[in-house]
Amino acid sequence: MRVAVLAHEQFPDRAKTAVGVLRYADHDVVAVLDRETAGTTVGDHLPDLDSAVPVVESVAEAPDFDALIIGIAPIGGGFEDSWRPDVRAAIERGADVIAGLHYFLNDDEEFVALADEYGVELRDVRKPPDDLTVAEGVARELDVEVVLTVGTDCSTGKMTTTLELVEAAREAGFDAGFVPTGQTGIVIAGWGIPVDRTISDFTNGAVERMLKERADEHDYLFVEGQGAIVHPAYSAVTCGILHGAMPEHLVLCHEAGREAIHGYESFPIPDPGRVAELYCDVADPVAPTDLLGGALNTSGLGESAAEAALTDYGEAIGAPAVDPVRDGAGRLVEQL
Amino acid sequence: MRVAVLAHEQFPDRAKTAVGVLRYADHDVVAVLDRETAGTTVGDHLPDLDSAVPVVESVAEAPDFDALIIGIAPIGGGFEDSWRPDVRAAIERGADVIAGLHYFLNDDEEFVALADEYGVELRDVRKPPDDLTVAEGVARELDVEVVLTVGTDCSTGKMTTTLELVEAAREAGFDAGFVPTGQTGIVIAGWGIPVDRTISDFTNGAVERMLKERADEHDYLFVEGQGAIVHPAYSAVTCGILHGAMPEHLVLCHEAGREAIHGYESFPIPDPGRVAELYCDVADPVAPTDLLGGALNTSGLGESAAEAALTDYGEAIGAPAVDPVRDGAGRLVEQL
Repeated sequence: MRVAVLAHEQFPDRAKTAVGVLRYADHDVVAVLDRETAGTTVGDHLPDLDSAVPVVESVAEAPDFDALIIGIAPIGGGFEDSWRPDVRAAIERGADVIAGLHYFLNDDEEFVALADEYGVELRDVRKPPDDLTVAEGVARELDVEVVLTVGTDCSTGKMTTTLELVEAAREAGFDAGFVPTGQTGIVIAGWGIPVDRTISDFTNGAVERMLKERADEHDYLFVEGQGAIVHPAYSAVTCGILHGAMPEHLVLCHEAGREAIHGYESFPIPDPGRVAELYCDVADPVAPTDLLGGALNTSGLGESAAEAALTDYGEAIGAPAVDPVRDGAGRLVEQL
Repeated sequence: MRVAVLAHEQFPDRAKTAVGVLRYADHDVVAVLDRETAGTTVGDHLPDLDSAVPVVESVAEAPDFDALIIGIAPIGGGFEDSWRPDVRAAIERGADVIAGLHYFLNDDEEFVALADEYGVELRDVRKPPDDLTVAEGVARELDVEVVLTVGTDCSTGKMTTTLELVEAAREAGFDAGFVPTGQTGIVIAGWGIPVDRTISDFTNGAVERMLKERADEHDYLFVEGQGAIVHPAYSAVTCGILHGAMPEHLVLCHEAGREAIHGYESFPIPDPGRVAELYCDVADPVAPTDLLGGALNTSGLGESAAEAALTDYGEAIGAPAVDPVRDGAGRLVEQL
């Protein structure tokens, strides 16, 4: 699928979805839309991607594509009216539109009418299916080995780590699949259930359902975790994913230097070793698990400080630790 | 408020809501509707209630009332068409109708039109408010002491224990309030949020919101727990309530003799002492808590076996244990 990715005024630093699509999706990205950095290429901003994909001003300047992906999300998840001309133009060029916003394209009268007229699809990936149910408790019986990323907090790199694990596993010759649980991962993968938007009683069941759907296709499934078991607001989702996925192995994601829950600064993050133990303790009565290793986000550190932080982190959790963005996740996959 | 309670063919043994309303609600119950046991009184079935409330065949035989409560819930939470004449008759007598079903009265065209015509309200208490948000993490800062009931499984008596705790606390002279989190508790209390039906990201926030609303009115709040932290399907909700409520104290509810998760028999329930520890460990990084005591459902046992089971249970959890239905919850309240 050829895609254009909308990231106006936010590419690349505040365009997590756009960068994720560029880095990990199987899609062929033909252009990034950003009116602020138009005229550059993706490679100018993200040298590791070595990409000649152009950054253009609007849909009019983009080569042919099959779908427009909304690659940014403002705080609150709304739809910015300044994106409207591009969405309109994409539909008029016969392209589908894919978004993970709180605001649903399918609730927008203009877009619905236009999509109908041009026979294209509006895909709101933040909307869970209507027919979710409670978990049956069968994930452990599936013929697949499951690895779940968990965190000491939100935004510690769980999605990136999961995608790097899949990449490293494939490079090592494993048949590995990615199970996305959040809107960015779903946009990248092109399928999935946004587990944080399900009815709370169906949280565990939503994850189990995804595993049941994909277990037959792969030998390993890498499940993207959400939130943290020590998070005052998001722990319900975390716990539901842990028990719904029944992973054989965990990878604990942490950001170097982060000492308190982001946005909830009065809640200190316990020692990562203690957090890892707690995940294993909570999993144990439902389906015992072990810690495969740790993933540390060291993007704020220089090379030698990063190495020292990785050593400390590995000692704290008593397992191998990598920064998957700097080093890839190969060392963790070797543990399988 | 004068209420009639519909419990056709299921009163009292399979009519948990109806019995809860009779036992704990502040409402004045004028009649129970059960076409199978019509002609008896509530006291004939539940001697401890010592109640002369009549069991009648239909709304036509009931004395005046302000609201009809649907006091039963079939598996799946649907609406039985054989209840329709009573709901219709109640509306035509000018009464509101209160239900905690999955099927919403407000989605039923006949009832909506009739309620409109007679100026009465249809209250679907299983529908959470539309404006829930994520938790702010402030429950511990509220000027109220919070006690949460937790369980080794679903259906271990958390709601009953919570209501008995409130009763015992009031008898001991405390200003105590009940915070319901499930449809039965909400029907009994006349307010509340069904936490198992919220968007999963808002689970913790839904509980926190109820505490914020009621903290100023009471010195103690007793929060009804849901599910179990060791449950393969419902643990997300359990964890969200634990972190959203930030209780100072826990009461662990267990059914004597139950060894596996109900309906998930391949999942053994760990030793209750271990389950209590796990609740405290999970709570700790967000808001430390302690175990006030245990509540054991001994309804399946004779008196001496019940006493022995209570002794064992108290030893297992290392805290005072009562059967709140046999003995009330006074001994637990004494610990406060």
